[in-house]
Amino acid sequence: MRNDQRKVNQLRKVTIETDYVKHPEGSVLISFGDTKVICNASIEDRVPPFLRNQGKGWITAEYAMLPRATENRNIRESSKGKVSGRTMEIQRLIGRALRAVVDLDKIGERTLWVDCDVIQADGGTRTASITGAFVAVVLALGKLVNNKSIKELPIHDYLTAISVGVLPEGEEVLDLCYEEDSKAQVDMNVVMTGNGEFVELQGTGEEATFSMPQLQTMLTLAQEGVTELVELQREAIGEWAEVISAKQAAQTGGQS
Amino acid sequence: MRNDQRKVNQLRKVTIETDYVKHPEGSVLISFGDTKVICNASIEDRVPPFLRNQGKGWITAEYAMLPRATENRNIRESSKGKVSGRTMEIQRLIGRALRAVVDLDKIGERTLWVDCDVIQADGGTRTASITGAFVAVVLALGKLVNNKSIKELPIHDYLTAISVGVLPEGEEVLDLCYEEDSKAQVDMNVVMTGNGEFVELQGTGEEATFSMPQLQTMLTLAQEGVTELVELQREAIGEWAEVISAKQAAQTGGQS
Amino acid sequence: MRNDQRKVNQLRKVTIETDYVKHPEGSVLISFGDTKVICNASIEDRVPPFLRNQGKGWITAEYAMLPRATENRNIRESSKGKVSGRTMEIQRLIGRALRAVVDLDKIGERTLWVDCDVIQADGGTRTASITGAFVAVVLALGKLVNNKSIKELPIHDYLTAISVGVLPEGEEVLDLCYEEDSKAQVDMNVVMTGNGEFVELQGTGEEATFSMPQLQTMLTLAQEGVTELVELQREAIGEWAEVISAKQAAQTGGQS
Amino acid sequence: MRNDQRKVNQLRKVTIETDYVKHPEGSVLISFGDTKVICNASIEDRVPPFLRNQGKGWITAEYAMLPRATENRNIRESSKGKVSGRTMEIQRLIGRALRAVVDLDKIGERTLWVDCDVIQADGGTRTASITGAFVAVVLALGKLVNNKSIKELPIHDYLTAISVGVLPEGEEVLDLCYEEDSKAQVDMNVVMTGNGEFVELQGTGEEATFSMPQLQTMLTLAQEGVTELVELQREAIGEWAEVISAKQAAQTGGQS
Amino acid sequence: MRNDQRKVNQLRKVTIETDYVKHPEGSVLISFGDTKVICNASIEDRVPPFLRNQGKGWITAEYAMLPRATENRNIRESSKGKVSGRTMEIQRLIGRALRAVVDLDKIGERTLWVDCDVIQADGGTRTASITGAFVAVVLALGKLVNNKSIKELPIHDYLTAISVGVLPEGEEVLDLCYEEDSKAQVDMNVVMTGNGEFVELQGTGEEATFSMPQLQTMLTLAQEGVTELVELQREAIGEWAEVISAKQAAQTGGQS
Amino acid sequence: MRNDQRKVNQLRKVTIETDYVKHPEGSVLISFGDTKVICNASIEDRVPPFLRNQGKGWITAEYAMLPRATENRNIRESSKGKVSGRTMEIQRLIGRALRAVVDLDKIGERTLWVDCDVIQADGGTRTASITGAFVAVVLALGKLVNNKSIKELPIHDYLTAISVGVLPEGEEVLDLCYEEDSKAQVDMNVVMTGNGEFVELQGTGEEATFSMPQLQTMLTLAQEGVTELVELQREAIGEWAEVISAKQAAQTGGQS
Repeated sequence: MRNDQRKVNQLRKVTIETDYVKHPEGSVLISFGDTKVICNASIEDRVPPFLRNQGKGWITAEYAMLPRATENRNIRESSKGKVSGRTMEIQRLIGRALRAVVDLDKIGERTLWVDCDVIQADGGTRTASITGAFVAVVLALGKLVNNKSIKELPIHDYLTAISVGVLPEGEEVLDLCYEEDSKAQVDMNVVMTGNGEFVELQGTGEEATFSMPQLQTMLTLAQEGVTELVELQREAIGEWAEVISAKQAAQTGGQS
Repeated sequence: MRNDQRKVNQLRKVTIETDYVKHPEGSVLISFGDTKVICNASIEDRVPPFLRNQGKGWITAEYAMLPRATENRNIRESSKGKVSGRTMEIQRLIGRALRAVVDLDKIGERTLWVDCDVIQADGGTRTASITGAFVAVVLALGKLVNNKSIKELPIHDYLTAISVGVLPEGEEVLDLCYEEDSKAQVDMNVVMTGNGEFVELQGTGEEATFSMPQLQTMLTLAQEGVTELVELQREAIGEWAEVISAKQAAQTGGQS
Repeated sequence: MRNDQRKVNQLRKVTIETDYVKHPEGSVLISFGDTKVICNASIEDRVPPFLRNQGKGWITAEYAMLPRATENRNIRESSKGKVSGRTMEIQRLIGRALRAVVDLDKIGERTLWVDCDVIQADGGTRTASITGAFVAVVLALGKLVNNKSIKELPIHDYLTAISVGVLPEGEEVLDLCYEEDSKAQVDMNVVMTGNGEFVELQGTGEEATFSMPQLQTMLTLAQEGVTELVELQREAIGEWAEVISAKQAAQTGGQS
Repeated sequence: MRNDQRKVNQLRKVTIETDYVKHPEGSVLISFGDTKVICNASIEDRVPPFLRNQGKGWITAEYAMLPRATENRNIRESSKGKVSGRTMEIQRLIGRALRAVVDLDKIGERTLWVDCDVIQADGGTRTASITGAFVAVVLALGKLVNNKSIKELPIHDYLTAISVGVLPEGEEVLDLCYEEDSKAQVDMNVVMTGNGEFVELQGTGEEATFSMPQLQTMLTLAQEGVTELVELQREAIGEWAEVISAKQAAQTGGQS
Repeated sequence: MRNDQRKVNQLRKVTIETDYVKHPEGSVLISFGDTKVICNASIEDRVPPFLRNQGKGWITAEYAMLPRATENRNIRESSKGKVSGRTMEIQRLIGRALRAVVDLDKIGERTLWVDCDVIQADGGTRTASITGAFVAVVLALGKLVNNKSIKELPIHDYLTAISVGVLPEGEEVLDLCYEEDSKAQVDMNVVMTGNGEFVELQGTGEEATFSMPQLQTMLTLAQEGVTELVELQREAIGEWAEVISAKQAAQTGGQS
Repeated sequence: MRNDQRKVNQLRKVTIETDYVKHPEGSVLISFGDTKVICNASIEDRVPPFLRNQGKGWITAEYAMLPRATENRNIRESSKGKVSGRTMEIQRLIGRALRAVVDLDKIGERTLWVDCDVIQADGGTRTASITGAFVAVVLALGKLVNNKSIKELPIHDYLTAISVGVLPEGEEVLDLCYEEDSKAQVDMNVVMTGNGEFVELQGTGEEATFSMPQLQTMLTLAQEGVTELVELQREAIGEWAEVISAKQAAQTGGQS
């Protein structure tokens, strides 16, 4: 039995509120239970030096937590004067994941800055960040389409992320909250496209190991979660859902 | 005429939402029009080294903005590896202001960490931070009273802050929004107690100067704003309003 | 009675020694009693990137103390690897103040670097810095006039700063020395032009507050001090005094 | 056909030279083809503050490359003044992996510092680091056993790591060299125990995705590589191989 | 002929002004021609962690230049956030040199902080710093003797430093000013005791080399300079001159 | 008697292995007894900003030690976020020394990066670094000659470095190992050309001093060591030895 009575394959309540903050081109507040993340996508009309004059764009993600997003207050990274290894890992992961579904060749020499700021944390902040960031990016790039800066939405599939893990008693579960996560033997983050392909897979035994059958059970759970999350993303992005689904279908056809 | 049709002595719509985030001992979302700040107060059961074994407490404030709280995205201070002069000025101001109304002698060897994180900025973020932080601090110290860690609420007056300024046409106004602020000749932040005493006064001519009569008009406007803000704080802190008002009255008696 | 027998409206002995160091375009050693600050103004023939190709100049101020300028040795900011919040506040204040009387439009694409280095501290280092920096800036810009780089002295008024405060017994005084400052209830720095207008006003209750009548008494004291300081500046800048006085008179005429 | 004629399931030539440097308690030079890493294990007789007085030990890993380990010279991280996100990710991974097979409860209040310094890089530096670090750790802890500081070798299984990936033509291969790695669609690092359990799995689509069948093929290749690497580790650690194999067998018995 | 008409073995005018700043235990303004350095010695009643509970003291030196001590303004090291290699070399040199003549065993668990701040630079700032710092240290330790904190002056010899070099035309000269130094083929700093022993010798060919005979000529010049400098130090330290001379004589007797 | 039975004028066993690492243009592993340093020379086709468009090149050296090159593990400078004073001194010394024998005018607008990484330390790491770096630089510039990027080898003399010192018993010795170095009264590093001229001389009394006769004995020992080291360099650089010897002879002729 899970500590919040969920079934092993049950997500927490997930909500996605769009246009949460007024300035960014795309802005989302996403909640996975008590985990709440503001995902803002900003468009800058230039690229980093290593990409100049190549006619293509870039995506950079940054991630942070408010000091008291957690049970105990964390020291601000700006006060410490450096970004922790954990933060770097997460922001590199978010950026890489988004680059897998956005066609950087089609956004011109622009940088998409994606800021994921956790205002309340209860486990799964990196997967919530990716899932919300995708929506913010669709909205931001949608604005570029609407104002004729680019011709069509340069996104060819959905992108979601979810955590799975093995509890101390050995049971595989979907979408771990903080209490589960802190005790889990295995913690795995799965980033997938709407087409069911893997973008990123990161599994860690916490002073423990896991077997091939456990891996397979976890991946099956992840796939179930992803299907639900794509549904929620479709609702949040409204008119753009049809566009992406059409591209996704075209692509699947191309691959098989 | 002001750009949003307000009268010269009219505040923007101010709202204070308490218990906004679940982990902190005191948590508030305060809005002054489109300026929105999360103010979290955390209690730590120890003090900085310079205060140890003196039986008294401390308050430290930190201030930050989400990168896209503003019209253009700002680089994160954690990425730059240092806190800007502007941020330092503001967080020192917030801490000093709060220390003027909290009796540090009566909170034991504890540190109050006050985090003001601006999620949307439209002028007046430092005054909104102080006004909201006061409420968060009351709620956090109220919890210490409720769980018998301290005997009584160690706060002897209300604390609010508001901006005033002189517009390009020479008119003095209350509570400048960003558009006004960016053009103003003079920008002044006034921190006051509920008793109408000054805690801090910071006025700056922006490549301009101001006269004694202009100063007096601005201070009168500030006083009007403060009276309204105290009313809103009283509503937000509920049961604690009576306690503070009683102390405030006692103090005024003592002073005059 | 003040600890050094001064009257409440009496400045400490103030001296301004020009051409103190040989390399800078303008160099001053200013003393307010035992507070001694070297103020050097350097002219660089370019502006920061954000101002390029706009035909106007810039002023940047830096402030530091020798480690043993104070009773106890302070750790060097270069050793700590970062500039403290206090230092940042002060150098931002000095720069802002100077920009209020220098016509940046008339100095060409040049940067004025103003370095205020405290070699001995006894209270009032920031106000001494501003008062001395003004003289160094006049001398440096005077050299540009003398060597025909610019047509006329681009300074339209005097600029001085002085501290005022409220002593523990409640008496308002002018120009606090360190011993007074460390005990004062209220500490206020006033930056004014020769015409008696405010450039900057920063008043702080130190775990205390102050009333409107106290504010008015302090501002009157400040005005008296400023008048004396302008006299000393006039002597120090020699030939340039007439030029500034003429501009100042013209300006007052224009304003009233 | 692979660029160096290897079969898809063929490792590069792997060598492990022990006692490479004289000061460390355990020292190894490991080569995977042209990738060469010095792995040094140092024992310090104390633990980080968060672990004090708990009677258990800790492992911290650090990773670096000589500036010219690569085709083009990299700027030293000590010159940049900060460690890159990539370096942090790798050193966190090495530490976590080692903690999965070392019984920290049985090493007393000691810290094992594991330094992996790449002197020549040709792909797979993080997996070579883990594979070599394991040997250095066995040798260092073996010294503690030999000098009676601890009773028995506190390591319950072998630990190796290997990369697998998908080449641009879609073929899954084992142990990618730099030329392959830089073009691969998918890059996956697998850390496994001698018992064939996963410790860590990190797979990344590089602006691409991968399917479940591709994942399974890669994991099968990894398993083949791991079996060979364990054989080489057994040779390198000499007398300690029997001890670990006995523990490993006991453990498998316990698990199944 | 030297650019300022000096003979090859002639020092610039050297002056030593004691008690220059009021707070430090020892304070000196030393000038070598236009090079002016404030040398302050501070006594702190504790030692760095690595020396605790050993009953002996320590000396740490710091060196800095005001930004406009030089012809062109230098960026402040506190703004850059790090101390340059040149500064580090110089402050390590000053500290090492002083430790050669001060008996750290006899000052108790105290740290002598020696701050050398160059307010005007014209070549030879490091040798002026050492020569002035010695005087400041004598005065500071003399105060410890006078207030009975230690029994006797723990300094057994004089310490001075001087530069010598080879000019472009090949002539060896004493005490190079900046104009000479910037063109010299060879630049050598010699730190010597009053007894004529070397404490430190640092000679550098600037994209040039030097021969044994050149070295010998330079060392002879240095010795002449040192004799004069010791005379000036004797005058500056007043009553303490006899004490050091007595110790110096005793020591020479012991050595020969 | 020396602790390793060497005669006072006897070097440790010195070996120079070329082409140690595959990527750099010049790569050497040099050993002085148990001191082992990898010296890599890299050529970059541009110069630092201050040299642009002057048609000449530059040499920059960097020096580091693996954390466990020493008896006790040192904290990595990349982790500390700054380079120590000792490291800066050494890398500045290596760069200056090399610039004395390389004709920067003849290498075009290129930067030679010289990386000296100590993998095992037993005294004399800076002198081993210089001696090995010279060989790496010859090999790297030799490649530029071979591929016709420059016309001839722009090196006009050999460059070697060696340590000498005074042991506690007062005996002068050549090439101190760590055990000797840590006890020595005097420690001197001598950098010389093949022609027997000094490039750099750095002698330090460690809480001790040294006399002119001691200096002369040390310099004679150094000269003996240098002669042997040049022989070993000649063997290591093969075909280039004749070229340098010819230039060296020409130069000596020119000088005498």
